[in-house]
This record gives sequence, C-alpha cells and structure tokens, in this order.
Amino acid sequence: MGMREQSLLEEIARRFRPGVADRRRGVRVGAGDDAALVRMGGTDVALTVDAVVEGVDFDLRYFGWSDVGYKALSAAVSDLYACGATPVAFLVTAGIPAGAKPTKIRSLLGGLQAAAAEHRATIVGGDLTRAPKLMLDVCAIGQAGKRFLRRSGARRGDMIFVSGPVGSSRAALLMFRRGLRVPRALRAAHLRPAAARRAGRDLSKEPRVTAMMDVSDGLLMDLSRLCRASRVGAGLVPSHLPVTSEARAAFRRLGKDPVQEAAIGGEDYVLLFTVRPPVPRHIRRRYACIGRILNPSPVGGPIYNMERRPPRRMVVKGFLHRF
Amino acid sequence: MGMREQSLLEEIARRFRPGVADRRRGVRVGAGDDAALVRMGGTDVALTVDAVVEGVDFDLRYFGWSDVGYKALSAAVSDLYACGATPVAFLVTAGIPAGAKPTKIRSLLGGLQAAAAEHRATIVGGDLTRAPKLMLDVCAIGQAGKRFLRRSGARRGDMIFVSGPVGSSRAALLMFRRGLRVPRALRAAHLRPAAARRAGRDLSKEPRVTAMMDVSDGLLMDLSRLCRASRVGAGLVPSHLPVTSEARAAFRRLGKDPVQEAAIGGEDYVLLFTVRPPVPRHIRRRYACIGRILNPSPVGGPIYNMERRPPRRMVVKGFLHRF
Repeated sequence: MGMREQSLLEEIARRFRPGVADRRRGVRVGAGDDAALVRMGGTDVALTVDAVVEGVDFDLRYFGWSDVGYKALSAAVSDLYACGATPVAFLVTAGIPAGAKPTKIRSLLGGLQAAAAEHRATIVGGDLTRAPKLMLDVCAIGQAGKRFLRRSGARRGDMIFVSGPVGSSRAALLMFRRGLRVPRALRAAHLRPAAARRAGRDLSKEPRVTAMMDVSDGLLMDLSRLCRASRVGAGLVPSHLPVTSEARAAFRRLGKDPVQEAAIGGEDYVLLFTVRPPVPRHIRRRYACIGRILNPSPVGGPIYNMERRPPRRMVVKGFLHRF
Repeated sequence: MGMREQSLLEEIARRFRPGVADRRRGVRVGAGDDAALVRMGGTDVALTVDAVVEGVDFDLRYFGWSDVGYKALSAAVSDLYACGATPVAFLVTAGIPAGAKPTKIRSLLGGLQAAAAEHRATIVGGDLTRAPKLMLDVCAIGQAGKRFLRRSGARRGDMIFVSGPVGSSRAALLMFRRGLRVPRALRAAHLRPAAARRAGRDLSKEPRVTAMMDVSDGLLMDLSRLCRASRVGAGLVPSHLPVTSEARAAFRRLGKDPVQEAAIGGEDYVLLFTVRPPVPRHIRRRYACIGRILNPSPVGGPIYNMERRPPRRMVVKGFLHRF
C-alpha cells in the first residue's frame, strides 16, 4: 500500500523534531520548514536540499539538460530566500543514466553554474553516480539573516502577499503536454525559473513580515501549509492573484479558468508571506496582496474564498508525490 | 559513447575550481577534495555530499533498508573526518520507488538516525521524491578543525598510514555474491560500516599529519588520488596492510589473495593519511604504517610495491562508475 507524501512528511517532521541534545549542538530549526537553521561557531547557517527526477519532476521532451540544471538549483536556492537567508554555496549530486553523452553532462553542469552565478554563490562540491533516470539533488547553504523567517509566524489579521506571478509554469507545462507552441515568457517560467533573490533580500530586512515560504507545490497547497504551521485559517481573494497576461491567454486557450489554475499550479518559486498591519508602503507597492489571515485554528485552515458571499471554503489541491 | 568517471571528475574539478569571486565570498576549498571548506561569518564550514543508488552501490538482496540508511550516512560523514572536521548536521534526500511499504521507509529513516546519533550530529532536513530505484543522497555539514586536511599535502619522505583494517567490506561483498554465509564482523563491515570518528578527531589535532582522505573506492585507487593531488609517488608495503583474520580467511576460501583483494576493495571508510617524520608515538602505536611517499612527480604516482627487489610498479585498480 502506498503512503501519501503529506502524511509521510508529517511523520518525518515529528520523528526528526530537534530534541534537547540537538538544540545544545546548535540546531535551532530542524526538518519541516523551507530550510533548517544551525548555529556553528557563532554563525547562523541555513541549510536546505531539493531533488528532481526525470519523469517525475521534469520531462526531457521539453527540457534541455542545461534547463534541468538551472531549474534544480533555482528550486533549492528558493528555499533559502524563503527563510530570509543569503546563498553562499551549493553541493550537487547528479545521477546520470548509463550511456549519457559527455556534451549532455557538460550542458547540465553549465545550467547549474549559470544559476549559481545569478545567485552570487558557488558550487563547491558534489557527487556523480549512475542512476536509472537523470536526477539532480541540490543542497544549498546560506548565511541566515538577522531574522530567520518561518512558516509558523502568521497571526490573525496579517495580510497575505506573494512576491510575483503565479501559474506561468503550469500554463507552460499544460501547453507542452498538449504539444502546443509555448510563448517565450511561459517557457522561461517553466524551464528556467528565477528564484526570488531580490524579494528575499528585501523581505528579510522587514520586521513586519511574520511568516514566509516559497510557492513550489502550488499557491493553495503551500498557503495551507503555512496555515497549518501557524495554526490559523486564511481568506483568499482569488481575483487578486497576480497572473500574467501570457498565462491568462494560455489557460483560456486550453479551456481552463486562469485563476483556478494559477492557484494550484506549482513551481512558481515566488515568495508567499504574511505582513502584520500597517503594511509598509514599499511592500504594498511591490507585491500583490491576495488575502488575509483569519482566526486561529488548532489544525490550520480552512482557506476561504472571500469573494463569495458568504465566504466559501476552498478545496486544497496541488502537487504531491505518491509512493 | 560513455565517459569514464575519473576523467569526468577531473573535468568537473577544473570547471568548478574556485575563482577570485568565489574566494572573496569565502570559498577556501572547492570541489575535488573529500569536503569543501567555506568561511561563513567567521566560521569555517566543511561540506560534502555522497549518494548511493540501488543496483549500483548496494543490493537489496543483502541490504535491509535500515542498513542502506546507516551506510549512506557513514559514507558521507567519513568525508568530514577525512578533512579533520566535526559533523554537525545532515540533510538527506531519499528517492523512493513507487509502492514502497511504509515499514521499509521507516526502517530507512531509523538507520539514518542511528548513524547520525553515533556521530553526535542531527538530521536537520531533507527531501523525499519518487525514483525508479531506491536511492539516498546525504549531505554532511561540519565544523572544520584548526587545520583542514587535504589530499594535496604529502611530501617526499612522509610515512603513509591507514586508520583501520581494509578489505573486510569487499570480502563480505564477494561472499554475499556467491551466496555464502557471511561471518558477522564482515557483514557489519559491508552493511553497517562505522566511519572513523575517533581517528578523525585524533588526527585533526596532529600537526605532523600532512595529507588525509578516506578510503572509499579502494586503498590503491585512493592512494593514487592522494599522490596525484600531492604530485608525488608512493612506495607501498602490501604485507603491512591491516587485514583482519576474518577477511583473510574469507578471501582464501574464495581462492583469492587476501592482500591483493584488500588493496582494491572499496568502502572501508578508514582514513588514509601521511605523516612527516619523526612520527609521533601515539600514531605509530594506533595506526598501521603501510609505506612512504617517494619522489615528486608532476602527474602523481606511480605506486611501487616495495617488497619486490627492485620495487615494482603496481597497477591501480578499484571502484569507478562508468557512464
């Protein structure tokens, strides 16, 4: 019998919750958040890892090997920004199928290096192994900011924001799958997503930001995780989701509702965060407010659609592995 | 056309050699050694990663899922000891085949946790993904000691040591493959190898140790890497290799030469190190001296068998992935 990822992840989070001995050794945040936080000799180090597997996380029919490298690194570094940390170094494990051409391997390394350079950080090591399918595992190490932002800090009345558009990656994926020509902006969003470097730096300095995470498995899914960690509910204004005109057009062409799709589409790598009012002007100006945190709730959630009268509970969907 | 691991690794080491910008950001040792060294806010952080894949690195006919977890973590932490660093935290990515039983997954986690506890360090995060075969990738983060020991410090006249027995893991592997009953000590050496915690701590404090690495792909192969990094040759006294009586008996039963097999057998996870004479007494007492470093050589090597008159050049064999 299989096991759903969410329940397995929760079991693991319980099992790996840092104990007294771990805390004494400097572990300040363990498994369960976007990144872990460990104090080493007076420095706060943020640590995270992210794996992608061919056929599960990407499809080589539309991905070049260079894209695979670029995207895998973006996904890992995104978790550092989500905690307000600054990337310093990466370790990369590549599982390479037998008979892979050297040019492909070089192209994979090139994509990884290009992404690392954009984040002003260095690939300092790794491991190569043979694997039945192409896979990459990227470990990102960063310097934590003055504040280490977690998923658990949201409180009733906080406003919910996202740092950039959602749904573009999903729009591209659906078009690729249908064999359609994918507009350039959507292609880039899916194949070479840029992690939210600027927003991460900006928001890590803002004392009114109460909780933060990145959107990797879909906005609704990730918001529900933030709610669970913070033990609160949330009210979403779906029409306020920032969806680009390219993504809207793509969804419409596919006969799908843009807002609904953008809410469940994964791999956006924007930051989802909550802000304690009054919301500073630069935040209101730069980022999209998409709702607010509602009453405390011991299990987290539900998420309401605030555009319905009365507000209606939303069904949480998104990307989950199945085992 | 495939590519041999060694040449690919060398190309990667060249490509990822830290440049000026990397050094300014604190990268002191990049890819190519057992671990990397990065300076973060006044702390020297050692970083390494190690992956294992079912069917390539382990066989589930003899490995329990718990053994897989234990061994994968040992292999990663061994690289930290090889640099004189102390483990602090681990990140673990597990690629799980579809339909894996929850009890197996729990057992894998249990093996990982048991190994982490032995090294007084904490698993602070990870990633779960679906994969065609069981695979684990363990990233180990440690605090560097006062000295960061590298492969490149050996000089002519240094004595070569290993911190423990070699060949036991290979003896077990060959017996497993032949379907023989494997003695308990050899089973443990193959399925649940202990990384050299005590030796790592001990040797990291010793100023006369000039170079160090761990033996993971076979003593001869790894010694030849040390020679290449240090640009020296080496003279080995094969009969001085510490091989346990159980391993000797096993190799004989298999009709193989114990010393020869011990020299090429991988996954010993002992430390291979060189010491500038005069060798301190505690080192002479605790560890096995197996040879000495010979003349400088721009490409590293050759390795001579010093028991032959005149000394005869040895053929370097060991474990390499093929792509």
